[in-house]
Amino acid sequence: MPDTDRILDRINSPEDLKGLSQSDLVKLAEEMRDEIIQTVSRTGGHLASNLGVVELTIALHTVFDSPRDKILWDVSHQAYPHKLLTGRRERFFTLRQEGGLSGFVRRDESEHDPFGAGHASTSISAALGLAKARDLRGGSEEVIAVIGDGALTGGLALEGMNNAQDLDTDVIIVLNDNEMSIAENVTALSYHLAKLRMDPLYQSIENRAKNTLERSSIGKRLARTAEGLSHGVTHLIGAKNGIIFEELGFRYLGPIDGHNITLLMEVFENAKKIRGPVLIHVQTIKGKGYEHAEANSRKFHGISGFTVADGKIEKTNGFSSFKDAFEETLIELAEKDPRITAITAAMPDGTGLAAFSKRFPDRYFDVGIAEEHAVTFAAGLAAGGIRPVVAIYSTFLQRAYDQIIHDVCLQNLPVVFVLDRAGIVGEDGPTHHGAFDLSYLRHIPGMTLMAPRDTNQLRDMLLTALTHDGPIAIRYPRGGGPTAYEHKSPSLLTIGQSEQLRSGNDACILAVGPVVYSALKAADILAEEGISVQVIDARFVKPLDEKAILKAVKQCGHLVVVEENTKLGGLGSAVLELFASECINVPVKLMGLPDRFIEHATPESILQSLGLSAEGIVQSVREICGKAGLVDNQPKTQPAEA
Amino acid sequence: MPDTDRILDRINSPEDLKGLSQSDLVKLAEEMRDEIIQTVSRTGGHLASNLGVVELTIALHTVFDSPRDKILWDVSHQAYPHKLLTGRRERFFTLRQEGGLSGFVRRDESEHDPFGAGHASTSISAALGLAKARDLRGGSEEVIAVIGDGALTGGLALEGMNNAQDLDTDVIIVLNDNEMSIAENVTALSYHLAKLRMDPLYQSIENRAKNTLERSSIGKRLARTAEGLSHGVTHLIGAKNGIIFEELGFRYLGPIDGHNITLLMEVFENAKKIRGPVLIHVQTIKGKGYEHAEANSRKFHGISGFTVADGKIEKTNGFSSFKDAFEETLIELAEKDPRITAITAAMPDGTGLAAFSKRFPDRYFDVGIAEEHAVTFAAGLAAGGIRPVVAIYSTFLQRAYDQIIHDVCLQNLPVVFVLDRAGIVGEDGPTHHGAFDLSYLRHIPGMTLMAPRDTNQLRDMLLTALTHDGPIAIRYPRGGGPTAYEHKSPSLLTIGQSEQLRSGNDACILAVGPVVYSALKAADILAEEGISVQVIDARFVKPLDEKAILKAVKQCGHLVVVEENTKLGGLGSAVLELFASECINVPVKLMGLPDRFIEHATPESILQSLGLSAEGIVQSVREICGKAGLVDNQPKTQPAEA
Repeated sequence: MPDTDRILDRINSPEDLKGLSQSDLVKLAEEMRDEIIQTVSRTGGHLASNLGVVELTIALHTVFDSPRDKILWDVSHQAYPHKLLTGRRERFFTLRQEGGLSGFVRRDESEHDPFGAGHASTSISAALGLAKARDLRGGSEEVIAVIGDGALTGGLALEGMNNAQDLDTDVIIVLNDNEMSIAENVTALSYHLAKLRMDPLYQSIENRAKNTLERSSIGKRLARTAEGLSHGVTHLIGAKNGIIFEELGFRYLGPIDGHNITLLMEVFENAKKIRGPVLIHVQTIKGKGYEHAEANSRKFHGISGFTVADGKIEKTNGFSSFKDAFEETLIELAEKDPRITAITAAMPDGTGLAAFSKRFPDRYFDVGIAEEHAVTFAAGLAAGGIRPVVAIYSTFLQRAYDQIIHDVCLQNLPVVFVLDRAGIVGEDGPTHHGAFDLSYLRHIPGMTLMAPRDTNQLRDMLLTALTHDGPIAIRYPRGGGPTAYEHKSPSLLTIGQSEQLRSGNDACILAVGPVVYSALKAADILAEEGISVQVIDARFVKPLDEKAILKAVKQCGHLVVVEENTKLGGLGSAVLELFASECINVPVKLMGLPDRFIEHATPESILQSLGLSAEGIVQSVREICGKAGLVDNQPKTQPAEA
Repeated sequence: MPDTDRILDRINSPEDLKGLSQSDLVKLAEEMRDEIIQTVSRTGGHLASNLGVVELTIALHTVFDSPRDKILWDVSHQAYPHKLLTGRRERFFTLRQEGGLSGFVRRDESEHDPFGAGHASTSISAALGLAKARDLRGGSEEVIAVIGDGALTGGLALEGMNNAQDLDTDVIIVLNDNEMSIAENVTALSYHLAKLRMDPLYQSIENRAKNTLERSSIGKRLARTAEGLSHGVTHLIGAKNGIIFEELGFRYLGPIDGHNITLLMEVFENAKKIRGPVLIHVQTIKGKGYEHAEANSRKFHGISGFTVADGKIEKTNGFSSFKDAFEETLIELAEKDPRITAITAAMPDGTGLAAFSKRFPDRYFDVGIAEEHAVTFAAGLAAGGIRPVVAIYSTFLQRAYDQIIHDVCLQNLPVVFVLDRAGIVGEDGPTHHGAFDLSYLRHIPGMTLMAPRDTNQLRDMLLTALTHDGPIAIRYPRGGGPTAYEHKSPSLLTIGQSEQLRSGNDACILAVGPVVYSALKAADILAEEGISVQVIDARFVKPLDEKAILKAVKQCGHLVVVEENTKLGGLGSAVLELFASECINVPVKLMGLPDRFIEHATPESILQSLGLSAEGIVQSVREICGKAGLVDNQPKTQPAEA
């Protein structure tokens, strides 16, 4: 039961914050931190980012009137405090659990979430859209976007920043800068400067002066550079970065100590009075208030459960993860081939490049949250004779779809794409599932597309990819492989060759990725019923092993295709396209993800509910055999080897 | 025959430029302009952009040593002068013709094209990749990217700029700023400043000073802003935009008169000596040297043939274009619904929003070359109750694939996507064909996807889209509709409902888009052979009219599906997926674009060669009927109405 003395327990909406004293707000921040730490220690989730914005969230909700005013959270992995203050406190314990609160903001979860997120760098463009919609409707609400310094490097955010002035609308961007802690002397200075610059009178004078400058796009403004240069070199050396925002047409306020509620509130009150786009630069400490998270904010960014007292993170049981196998194999291969380089878009830990970055610092590129640049940069490297490996989560690589087509595949450049988090990711939900990659990569000419069934096959595929002379992608899911990692010497695969893992004549299952093991289990179960099932690991979604698949289907008369990807346009569709072109008219059952966004839950629960389990596959095989008249008749006995 | 007195005729490679005098180079520029004007007047293509960079190209090829040094052209619609100087002069008359030179740079066309392009904003990232590849190989060649001020606003270019300093490599970015002509006083000043700043001695002193500043990312640099602010307000107002590049870690040189070969060469020579990323700001005049193009560079950007003497552009014969029908219909609908707004990514003319922008300036947004921002901004507008129409070419919308998924469809926001240039665009070739949109949009949950067969149906679809309560896309090809534009009052379509245009029992053709008319023509031809063919206009690729399609196929026993989209994952695959799930095992013939990039030629020639013509469809129907035993037997007689 909640401690009834808690201020937090009396906050049922942001309205309830309005009467609180500053000391109450400070106490509230402590209570919120405690609530977040306790909950995340059980549910897992994002910790450091949320602890960093507790005061910022309190100040925003005290000064602004959500849901009338619109507060947008970029990525929204820092929105737990926002959830606690906006009517979701009592359900907070359900965070990231099936049927419970999302780990991100969602329009369908609360009227206080005006724009959902999960991917980075969207909030500025979305806020500009909401602001312009307000202008067109004649409304007067405030629109505020909170974006981290990491997300600000994404091209989408930069495009939004660049367009803000032209749109000529009132919007407040809160830049949550948590890369470095605040040194005392800087804070003192900032406080002073912030106070000075936020005086509304001062603003209005300054604005008059600024308005004499023509409002224009980057393009036009570039042409005026000559004047700027006449100020000379010392000017350039002395200038720092607030000026970038001013040049882009923002009124810049900051930097502000993001843990000082009083100061934040004062700044926000003043920002309300400023017309046009405002950027408030707030400095926060990731993990603030929890020593283990402060000391290691990278480790405590996104985590599974942990012990609050000592910050010990629960180890997941099971086999080595695909990520670990990738990390180790890439280093082994890179030892032998100096052309091999690795690229990450700000996720060295998540994608398995941390060790590589230490071993080969000159051949490792963290380009920041910039997936498009990552891919075109890789294309440039490949055009220069280098062998780049671009490691980006399946869902984030969606950002670089055009670059994969236009810069890599059209030029047939040997770039290796490694997509972790392909398929169901679980608790992070619909923004993070890798549901589409087999579909969005398969229809690109020249792309070769693989999915390993286990960590050992991943080794073979990485070797194969790095010796292939064209674009090639490997996709695998989050977490542990379905079998033990044997660390055998990797073998070169023949491009487009599948592997028959089990022979059988009654039915054939063609699967790709770890669901191959579910297919094998299903075949075991069916064998006990006397149904002899052939299992083929496709290995390659493109090119398809046409010969083997045609042979199998001629043998069995029908086919079940299993993939952890949308059923639209993936492996299953490839098989159907093949059969259509070959005039093979047989029953084919496609198993995969349905044509809807999939909610958060454990991966096991999701796969089970979607039928992507051994039992689900058994069911499908029975069904297709039933239609072929096999199940209701005498089941055939075990056939000879195919 | 070429005039043998021309200097141009003696230039077979950039090597041949090296001994030429400055006056020869100036004469060469005139000859190149003439060659380009004469050729483009016949072939069509990009004119204004190419005339603007003649001197720039000469200077680059005189100072640098291509192909050893790598010169990249962003978009590369300004690379005709480059082609003339790099061994392609004699084939220049084949520009954009089938089997002839591409209108863009291509790695497979010349060793002087180190990185191909067609889409904007890729050159900085690609150049950084080539530069870093050189460093890793221990090479010493120069890498130069030429990018326009428009392309610089693309998120990809901004991501590249932001990453340049961290990559710590030598690269030269030439910013081709052609938004405004050069005023005399500015030029004088720039000349002076440019000379001053390019003195290598001066550089080295300045570099020493600059090196005391920590090299860091935008994120880190933001944190240092406090210092910058202490310089006060006058500092901020006085600052101009070269400083943005300096802040991003570039050495900035400019602005330079881009039509002064001597000055350009001097600047390039000096830029070679500077370590790290350099940005040379060059000012050019679009259409330079051809009065009609100078006077109207927008009209002479990308054109069909024209008369050199008077600049009169050839009118294409035929019916009103889809673009015109869209433009007119959108304005009509927007007159009645004040929520309707329109967004373009720097292509008001190409997408048909020029008239809208004049009629509804407050409801029109040109966000610059920023497709990602365009879509997320639209999502924000839609979340705020507005009805945005995002008009972006099919191939360029690939840039916003993730935003369509994550910001629009996941939130089920009513954004209308209007994709012109869907299918084969013709002479612009593989970077510009809209070959993938039915595939990349169809697999996104919640998307509704339409393609009008003619301009009249486009009106119905636009009305339908603007009354639909979720994401919806309309795709249509470049150019004129296949029938007369009747300008009837638009009718609301039922979402997911197809239209049977012709009844028949022997075969059924399901088509979408203008190829519906080819299907009808095919049915006419086949009727004369006694084969009775049903023709259905799918209208919706998603949701599919399952009932109608199942009924038709049960009637006819087989199906031909025709679409101007890749055969992988589009309408045909949707039909196959439907049949698989319904256990319909009948012959289905998919007609569409093959799984390869398609070269440039006239649209008619390409469609013919791919079988996407009435004759091709006749062939397919005969084939499928043959397999079903219809053609070799007695053909059936005309059936009753279905």
